[in-house]
Amino acid sequence: MGDAPKHISAIFLLVLVSGLVPSSHGHKIRPCKEMVFYFHDILYNGKNFDNATSAIVGAPAWGNRTHMAGFNNFGDMVVFDDPITLDNNLHSPPVGRAQGFYFYDMKNTFSAWLGFSFVFNCTELKGTLNFAGADPILVKTRDVSVIGGTGDFFMARGIATISTDAFEGDVYFRLRVHVKLYECWK
Amino acid sequence: MGDAPKHISAIFLLVLVSGLVPSSHGHKIRPCKEMVFYFHDILYNGKNFDNATSAIVGAPAWGNRTHMAGFNNFGDMVVFDDPITLDNNLHSPPVGRAQGFYFYDMKNTFSAWLGFSFVFNCTELKGTLNFAGADPILVKTRDVSVIGGTGDFFMARGIATISTDAFEGDVYFRLRVHVKLYECWK
Amino acid sequence: MGDAPKHISAIFLLVLVSGLVPSSHGHKIRPCKEMVFYFHDILYNGKNFDNATSAIVGAPAWGNRTHMAGFNNFGDMVVFDDPITLDNNLHSPPVGRAQGFYFYDMKNTFSAWLGFSFVFNCTELKGTLNFAGADPILVKTRDVSVIGGTGDFFMARGIATISTDAFEGDVYFRLRVHVKLYECWK
Repeated sequence: MGDAPKHISAIFLLVLVSGLVPSSHGHKIRPCKEMVFYFHDILYNGKNFDNATSAIVGAPAWGNRTHMAGFNNFGDMVVFDDPITLDNNLHSPPVGRAQGFYFYDMKNTFSAWLGFSFVFNCTELKGTLNFAGADPILVKTRDVSVIGGTGDFFMARGIATISTDAFEGDVYFRLRVHVKLYECWK
Repeated sequence: MGDAPKHISAIFLLVLVSGLVPSSHGHKIRPCKEMVFYFHDILYNGKNFDNATSAIVGAPAWGNRTHMAGFNNFGDMVVFDDPITLDNNLHSPPVGRAQGFYFYDMKNTFSAWLGFSFVFNCTELKGTLNFAGADPILVKTRDVSVIGGTGDFFMARGIATISTDAFEGDVYFRLRVHVKLYECWK
Repeated sequence: MGDAPKHISAIFLLVLVSGLVPSSHGHKIRPCKEMVFYFHDILYNGKNFDNATSAIVGAPAWGNRTHMAGFNNFGDMVVFDDPITLDNNLHSPPVGRAQGFYFYDMKNTFSAWLGFSFVFNCTELKGTLNFAGADPILVKTRDVSVIGGTGDFFMARGIATISTDAFEGDVYFRLRVHVKLYECWK
């Protein structure tokens, strides 16, 4: 009986650290936090500097930095600073910025790889979430890893399910990001 | 006695989340999952577009994008989409693609930094593993971090021990990747 | 009583895996390991090859690889191999190298994104720590994620609080890095 408090703290810690809420039958794992965001990427094409939120900064030998390289953009590397909104309207008040890079990595189809952060700066959300992973663009939904977080998202881990919400030529696309955290420390 | 189920679920959760199997004496930690893969990188050199699986997309001021830059390739940044096989034969049926980037980061020796995903697409394996870390190429084995995963590798973490299985000039190399996961959620 | 050992091992595992030391009242979480390092970045500017520890390898259309691009360096991507010291003296004996890349990602202020490793190679420290995250340079302290580690830092996770300790024009800066690990497996 004397060690009952230890059991409680062990269980408390588990919930604190892992945020796991397995169902009583089966092992279905539910997120400890879920959120949906949109981010909006406007690529510099030589004529739209003021509006552009991203630019090509690396390209293969056959490419350049104002037009995608051909062969499904293979090798084009882009740095971005995109507004994040809570709905799919580019002109909604942003809750933060999606900042990072992506590059196209397949010659025979559209596919990318992403490394970026959500940097929140609104009254409701402070801190960052960090992401990395493969983005096979033409697949309807694709999962990347939430590899860490700071502030409100201190030490978070999870999965972000990405879908392309709009795509307009080479210049504009909008991604819907369904963030599911499975490790919540806050 | 009434809280016995809690103890069980605490222990169950620990094994579920951490996949830890410490030996009874000492604290040796064994992986919850181990796998070995090979991946094959054929660098674009200006003449081999059809076969190439990677290309230089960034280079320092003294470099270009069809030849390595000199000074141990310092600053050359490469995007790749390499076949993954279960043995060391480039022509074995691939189980997926290794997609990502690496760059050379030392002037006085060969050393690189890796950010990439294994994107599995065979019947036995679905999902991705995400990796990041330093790769001091001339060291026989070097460890990078498994920073997350999706699908069959949902929320995985671990270590990947990399060794250079073959190296042919500037155009072809093959890496052996020993993946050891220590956090298994599936 | 028969399952007492289970309780102990559950608690033991928790401490082993999470390194959590919550205070008895409240839920303040303290690191399982803390360290402070400095690293020193000397950017190649066309004239300082011998001393330079970093170089621009990607730039937007309006930039080049020997001068920052304007518009707060937006799009400039830099590869680095910087000495790590225990104090703020560039000439102190290094305990390892900070190797990775950063890029500037805002047009209207100075802001960067970092992906790098600390590669330790002194007698006291062996192994690596891997980092990723947003670095809003003008903020006094900013947090990035420790996304993994190897060797002495096997499977580590945590937060690194970065502050700019010195900044001299476009060529030299020094970062102070306060590493706080919250998951310690060693």
